[in-house]
Amino acid sequence: MKAFFFDIFGTLVDWRSSIISGLKNLDIFNNRLSELELFVINWRKEYQPILNKVNDNSIGWKILDELHEVTLETVLNRMNFSNVTNEEKKYLILLWHKLNPWSDSCKAIKQLNEKYITASLSNGNITLQKNLFKYANLNFDFIFSAEHFKKYKPNKIVYRGAVEMLNLKIDQCVLVASHKNDLHAAANFGMKTIYINRAQEYGSFKNEFKEKTFKADLEISSLNNILNDIKKLKN
Amino acid sequence: MKAFFFDIFGTLVDWRSSIISGLKNLDIFNNRLSELELFVINWRKEYQPILNKVNDNSIGWKILDELHEVTLETVLNRMNFSNVTNEEKKYLILLWHKLNPWSDSCKAIKQLNEKYITASLSNGNITLQKNLFKYANLNFDFIFSAEHFKKYKPNKIVYRGAVEMLNLKIDQCVLVASHKNDLHAAANFGMKTIYINRAQEYGSFKNEFKEKTFKADLEISSLNNILNDIKKLKN
Repeated sequence: MKAFFFDIFGTLVDWRSSIISGLKNLDIFNNRLSELELFVINWRKEYQPILNKVNDNSIGWKILDELHEVTLETVLNRMNFSNVTNEEKKYLILLWHKLNPWSDSCKAIKQLNEKYITASLSNGNITLQKNLFKYANLNFDFIFSAEHFKKYKPNKIVYRGAVEMLNLKIDQCVLVASHKNDLHAAANFGMKTIYINRAQEYGSFKNEFKEKTFKADLEISSLNNILNDIKKLKN
Repeated sequence: MKAFFFDIFGTLVDWRSSIISGLKNLDIFNNRLSELELFVINWRKEYQPILNKVNDNSIGWKILDELHEVTLETVLNRMNFSNVTNEEKKYLILLWHKLNPWSDSCKAIKQLNEKYITASLSNGNITLQKNLFKYANLNFDFIFSAEHFKKYKPNKIVYRGAVEMLNLKIDQCVLVASHKNDLHAAANFGMKTIYINRAQEYGSFKNEFKEKTFKADLEISSLNNILNDIKKLKN
């Protein structure tokens, strides 16, 4: 293996609890605190469907920040949040730029960085990732984004584009992700795969996010022993 | 401005003195210490001509490490160094992966990183840059290499490729370099330019490396006040 590519949302950062924390700062949520988790989950549920619309050209290319704007509108309407100002909407969208890493993420990236090429491979736009990595103290050699390739994962163009940019052979590249549809697409393209089970990603709504059935080359439940764990991957 | 691209060799690292130091570890140079600087300068003189050959398709694509192998052979022969083992040649080529930064380089990149996107834009291949940045403690958001685009600077494909990868407008991008031919090509493409005068880059052989006549948008002699200096660039 030469390079490790990382999915970000869910895999390295805990979007659910981070966004919930951020929501508490807005007056509009004050008397509806019991609905915060549901709000975030509903917002997240709009994510893959709208990415699919971009990928199948039902709508034109938009970066993730712009898609978050569209899906935020949908979920605010559906849950009957009214009188949300444009400033508040902007604040909500930018919450995705400040997400806390899981406790094992930063150290693992740092360790891998010593011996391997590390890169993000995320649907987050470039500026979002730049802000997020500074906030979360995640340091990669390369940032790769759907924005580079104008398609969203799991479209194969994204995986191929990133591997080509590094001039590597596909089987020298590993994708680490907490989502099996992402890993499945990477494996179809020829990459090695590591599934990390982030049991808390969806909180109490886990069952509402169905996973593809897929067996990754390596399946782990934390990144604490990543340098040892990757020895189980064939060269 | 949104992004600062940096040339590396000469601009941020002192290849001349670093390579000279490294040469002293090899027995073959022991009784020819007075020729060390000349050796390095001669090696460097082979650099642009062989890049040009790649760019005009006289020879096929090779990464910089491979070109260094070819030019090393040339300079060893010309200076009558004999009995150099393959192991020693490999050591010499890898000296380019371990170059010391100028004293102002690391801090400047760190400062710019806080507010802007930073990226390398170098003819060094990806692995070379990865090793070099780890050695020199230089941390960019993005590593861009001629290797990504299969052409060498000053071919415009390299500048265009890097700007496109970041989805930025050309005039939001600044190239910082100690070589006017590099800056001239970037300016022709529409980038903003900062020339940094590295007076010691070529040591006592300065006059043998002719510079294009070109006036950059900003000309400075150190990166010590970079955050203030860039205010003189128009937005």
